[in-house]
Amino acid sequence: MIFTSDNWAGAHPAISAALSAHSNGFAPAYGASDLDLKVEQTFNEIFEQQVAVFFVGTGTAANSLALSAINRPGGVSFCHREAHVIADECGAPEFFSSGSRLVPVNGAEGKMDPATLEAEIARFPEGFVHGGQPMAITLTQATEAGTVYQSDEIREISRIAKAHGLPLHMDGARFANALVALDLTPAQMTVELGVDIVSFGGTKNGCWCAEALVFLNPDMAKQVPFIRKRAAQLFSKSRFIAAQFDAYFENNLWLDIARHANAMSARLQAGINSSGNARLAWQSPANETFPIVSKALAKQLTAKGAMFYEWSPPRSGSHLLGEEEIMLRLVTSFATTSEHVDQFIDLLG
Amino acid sequence: MIFTSDNWAGAHPAISAALSAHSNGFAPAYGASDLDLKVEQTFNEIFEQQVAVFFVGTGTAANSLALSAINRPGGVSFCHREAHVIADECGAPEFFSSGSRLVPVNGAEGKMDPATLEAEIARFPEGFVHGGQPMAITLTQATEAGTVYQSDEIREISRIAKAHGLPLHMDGARFANALVALDLTPAQMTVELGVDIVSFGGTKNGCWCAEALVFLNPDMAKQVPFIRKRAAQLFSKSRFIAAQFDAYFENNLWLDIARHANAMSARLQAGINSSGNARLAWQSPANETFPIVSKALAKQLTAKGAMFYEWSPPRSGSHLLGEEEIMLRLVTSFATTSEHVDQFIDLLG
Amino acid sequence: MIFTSDNWAGAHPAISAALSAHSNGFAPAYGASDLDLKVEQTFNEIFEQQVAVFFVGTGTAANSLALSAINRPGGVSFCHREAHVIADECGAPEFFSSGSRLVPVNGAEGKMDPATLEAEIARFPEGFVHGGQPMAITLTQATEAGTVYQSDEIREISRIAKAHGLPLHMDGARFANALVALDLTPAQMTVELGVDIVSFGGTKNGCWCAEALVFLNPDMAKQVPFIRKRAAQLFSKSRFIAAQFDAYFENNLWLDIARHANAMSARLQAGINSSGNARLAWQSPANETFPIVSKALAKQLTAKGAMFYEWSPPRSGSHLLGEEEIMLRLVTSFATTSEHVDQFIDLLG
Amino acid sequence: MIFTSDNWAGAHPAISAALSAHSNGFAPAYGASDLDLKVEQTFNEIFEQQVAVFFVGTGTAANSLALSAINRPGGVSFCHREAHVIADECGAPEFFSSGSRLVPVNGAEGKMDPATLEAEIARFPEGFVHGGQPMAITLTQATEAGTVYQSDEIREISRIAKAHGLPLHMDGARFANALVALDLTPAQMTVELGVDIVSFGGTKNGCWCAEALVFLNPDMAKQVPFIRKRAAQLFSKSRFIAAQFDAYFENNLWLDIARHANAMSARLQAGINSSGNARLAWQSPANETFPIVSKALAKQLTAKGAMFYEWSPPRSGSHLLGEEEIMLRLVTSFATTSEHVDQFIDLLG
Repeated sequence: MIFTSDNWAGAHPAISAALSAHSNGFAPAYGASDLDLKVEQTFNEIFEQQVAVFFVGTGTAANSLALSAINRPGGVSFCHREAHVIADECGAPEFFSSGSRLVPVNGAEGKMDPATLEAEIARFPEGFVHGGQPMAITLTQATEAGTVYQSDEIREISRIAKAHGLPLHMDGARFANALVALDLTPAQMTVELGVDIVSFGGTKNGCWCAEALVFLNPDMAKQVPFIRKRAAQLFSKSRFIAAQFDAYFENNLWLDIARHANAMSARLQAGINSSGNARLAWQSPANETFPIVSKALAKQLTAKGAMFYEWSPPRSGSHLLGEEEIMLRLVTSFATTSEHVDQFIDLLG
Repeated sequence: MIFTSDNWAGAHPAISAALSAHSNGFAPAYGASDLDLKVEQTFNEIFEQQVAVFFVGTGTAANSLALSAINRPGGVSFCHREAHVIADECGAPEFFSSGSRLVPVNGAEGKMDPATLEAEIARFPEGFVHGGQPMAITLTQATEAGTVYQSDEIREISRIAKAHGLPLHMDGARFANALVALDLTPAQMTVELGVDIVSFGGTKNGCWCAEALVFLNPDMAKQVPFIRKRAAQLFSKSRFIAAQFDAYFENNLWLDIARHANAMSARLQAGINSSGNARLAWQSPANETFPIVSKALAKQLTAKGAMFYEWSPPRSGSHLLGEEEIMLRLVTSFATTSEHVDQFIDLLG
Repeated sequence: MIFTSDNWAGAHPAISAALSAHSNGFAPAYGASDLDLKVEQTFNEIFEQQVAVFFVGTGTAANSLALSAINRPGGVSFCHREAHVIADECGAPEFFSSGSRLVPVNGAEGKMDPATLEAEIARFPEGFVHGGQPMAITLTQATEAGTVYQSDEIREISRIAKAHGLPLHMDGARFANALVALDLTPAQMTVELGVDIVSFGGTKNGCWCAEALVFLNPDMAKQVPFIRKRAAQLFSKSRFIAAQFDAYFENNLWLDIARHANAMSARLQAGINSSGNARLAWQSPANETFPIVSKALAKQLTAKGAMFYEWSPPRSGSHLLGEEEIMLRLVTSFATTSEHVDQFIDLLG
Repeated sequence: MIFTSDNWAGAHPAISAALSAHSNGFAPAYGASDLDLKVEQTFNEIFEQQVAVFFVGTGTAANSLALSAINRPGGVSFCHREAHVIADECGAPEFFSSGSRLVPVNGAEGKMDPATLEAEIARFPEGFVHGGQPMAITLTQATEAGTVYQSDEIREISRIAKAHGLPLHMDGARFANALVALDLTPAQMTVELGVDIVSFGGTKNGCWCAEALVFLNPDMAKQVPFIRKRAAQLFSKSRFIAAQFDAYFENNLWLDIARHANAMSARLQAGINSSGNARLAWQSPANETFPIVSKALAKQLTAKGAMFYEWSPPRSGSHLLGEEEIMLRLVTSFATTSEHVDQFIDLLG
């Protein structure tokens, strides 16, 4: 009953097998192997157009190099107040982009509110050198709250980005979970909605270590080969990432894994809803579930072997907790089974 | 007959098997798993004292974060003119250390000449704010020329470092190759000679992606957890690095691999020496060999399937080439076989 | 009737005369002249202890180098939401401190609320590498709202800083205005209250260009000579700053100027209070005044030659404006005369 | 007899008087005053075309922001081995340009040798991500050796720059000294020879603190307003720089000062040549003179009140000193008189 994080799982057996299969033999280093090139081509197919793809080692790297690539002096990027870039990356995005700033934007359930976003951008009038200048909008899909932006919501944020001449970045550490929740194609969730850059995550969805920085507008990527190398993110045996992605995309494994993880989260939410002893802070279609329980029950759950993190409000809105209540975060992955879920629900009593 | 680089090899079968074996089950992320902790303990044993170990993804990351950790404003680090940090890292060490500078030091066969090193340091007198201030000495062991610093040579550089109050960093991307070439223990090659920080490489010696930044003086490492995370080098499923190192150290696999690679290089050098059609630029006890051949022969070798890089002088000294000659670099690894070597020697005629 | 900013004034005649008087003759460059050393000694006297002083060219430089000197990787500094460092320096503090972050803290009338400050610091638990780590608290004295922290208020913030092991920086761009408003000595307003570093401003208070970065704890300043030079803030003819400060401190000119500017602001506030056509957003004892007037009146004032900036709420609290009202900012300086003030008050009708 | 540096002089009386004259009255801050705009227009006239001008506080700032504005990731700039940017700026250019690297180029008498420059650039083949990428060429005019690049020499370096797509920057800390030595117009020495950016220095030539970063190609300057503010180089009372430049250009004062300083240096060189006790290391048409004297004589000179810096070879070539000889550097300025010079020559005996 381990629901701490999707990165507590190891690697999916098919990913692991592919990595072993590719461990033999010589191949050009630094991303020039046939396998690397094949996987780059797969990305073109997935996004239904020519893209510029760069494998990197961590989601933080993908996000940080995205901002580094579109960096402006005195630059200000806008993200949700709880976004990973601002809450969980130890200042890496700022470090890699010469001290650019992240401005937190409020919004319910992990999603930026468009009107609030507009108001925040308006604080930086064009040419006012003292305040700095807007440089990007970054949204997280699926969000840190397990929710997903609907197509219309992305389109609205994209409209704001275009109106201000700002590139739109999508932190897709849980890209696949959002995709299957929305039942969209990658191009539909990005290209068609005006997204410019995607941090495309594989690690949380069954890989060991496979992240890709994808520029849907390859013109933005001209300096990225140097930016990546300077950032110590060019891997010599790059095919160890390519091999993971190769298996990941084979027969749509990535979508199957994401559907499974989301289903496990839905099963948790259904169980919580029907339990009399817990309630959901909000509905979350991706692979994270946020129940509110009594502190006493939380202790019992832990004592009986359930593992999870407490989640402290204010988080994604003003979900008032009773004095004796706490909010939990439960994350599911390819490694979560129905038995884990049902066992947890049983513990709720 | 692929001698392009040791990073064209994949992963050693034992490394690959360990990675598979550890892919199942849940474990704490970000380096807190039992396996991570076990491997950290192994590093203590290898260096025969308490060390501070940080897994990172690339050798460039290890080198750059080492310099970042001991960073001084206006800082100047000293390295050999052909060192990887200055020649092959696209400015990553400078980028990660707020624009500190690398000063190239001359010396034969890839090794800094101590007197030249002293002279370069002397260009930065204490307190002269215009020139900047010395901040570190970094040596590469084994060197980019396939040579190794002898104990006395390291001791002399270490003496210079101590005399100027400078930390001594060792870029050990090929640490194991040097170690077995010298027949020393890790502690003998570092701690006992006054080395403070080691970039401990596993990737070139049979791993997929396993590098460790090791502080022999853990006091220097206090800020490194934040420095690493800010550098996007903290891996969520860190155990995929730990698993590789675990197998790497098991039954001294790492030393066996290094001995094999060095032996293949020695076999190449013996063959070249006895061939009438090539000569060695210099002797190199680690896993790189530098023959000088006629341009015509080089073309023939390539045509018959041998793969290698041309190496252009001036490289590690004034090895005058005849007008129709070129220098080659041949690198061996766990994946190099005697057959590869003998086939190459045969081609020399 | 120019109330736009204290930096629209030129230089006080005594400052200007001193600069002329020192323009002749040779003197050591880069801060080594007798005059530089004399002024450094004056700073020791003013703060009643040995301090480390560094002349720089702008207040933004002083603030940014202060944070650069106490920089931590993944560092987070806390300031008021409207502080100059976060609102008006185009990211310079972040740029100079390797991408460290400024976290805005709410509080009425330009002053951080201590409980809110504590709550913000608590968001960064010790050792939690993902969020980053607290690195400094910076308060502005006088504030951007023309208010001043009382001794007890500084003491309380200082207590919080010490409890978390954080250096306390004071942005004293309007240090003198605060000092005379509180009727304290410099040591009483800083050393005795636990302030560690002061950005000591002369420019807004009658100098052309004279700012000093003062470390009350000189141990924190060991690397600052290099930090300043690397930041392009070491002036060759440094005595042109020293000469200004020399005149500034002579016969307490600086305090006289500040008293005059504050008095002009008080006169404005008294006039506004007795006028029936304007009201004060809040009382402000330093040299800035914030009246609320009707939009129609604001237009009339401008038409009749008064110059000022509109100040948009939310600014220092929830001062609700009527639909037809706006808030103005009026700044006074050595160059403001009673006639300017009275003429403005007359225009209020 | 003070020949230590041109920055040991104060301000020229006309500069000082102008500063006083402009100290009264209110004017828009941050470079928006009429005087600022007038001086910007003067720069257009001087360069005979529309330029983008940015006042900054130090020559190091001008050089560093020039490189910051044309920054490339993994960028490498080429300069003479003894250029101020690499020898005397404590890493500021690297710091402000995200860790870009300066590569020293050899050449006699302070000037880059074009063939050597070509060879250094060739070390960074296009698209080879490991080595980094060329980003700029920067030449110093007049050089640190008191020499000046002839038109043809600049044209040749410019040709190399254009051939590699590199912007050409001129560090003109002693721009005026070079200009009058060559008897060229500013446009002839820059625009017509393909220079893109000039660090235009006033400080060494009689100002207190007046440096301008001039983009002859204004398109390169679009981000510079933000780059300058982020660098803490936007002065609030910017007119104190404008006032200096205004007087500097009035009636060609700047050229008169430079002619005087150069003439004083020529007088020194003539005296040294006719003296039997000293010889010139090389002829230098600008305002620096480099005699070689016996150590004994140097001591006598100092004892009798002459002040200068010793200059250590290897500096600008292989000027072999006898065992008992040293090289001196003598710098002249507006404040140097014929009497100073003749007194010094007399001491040579």
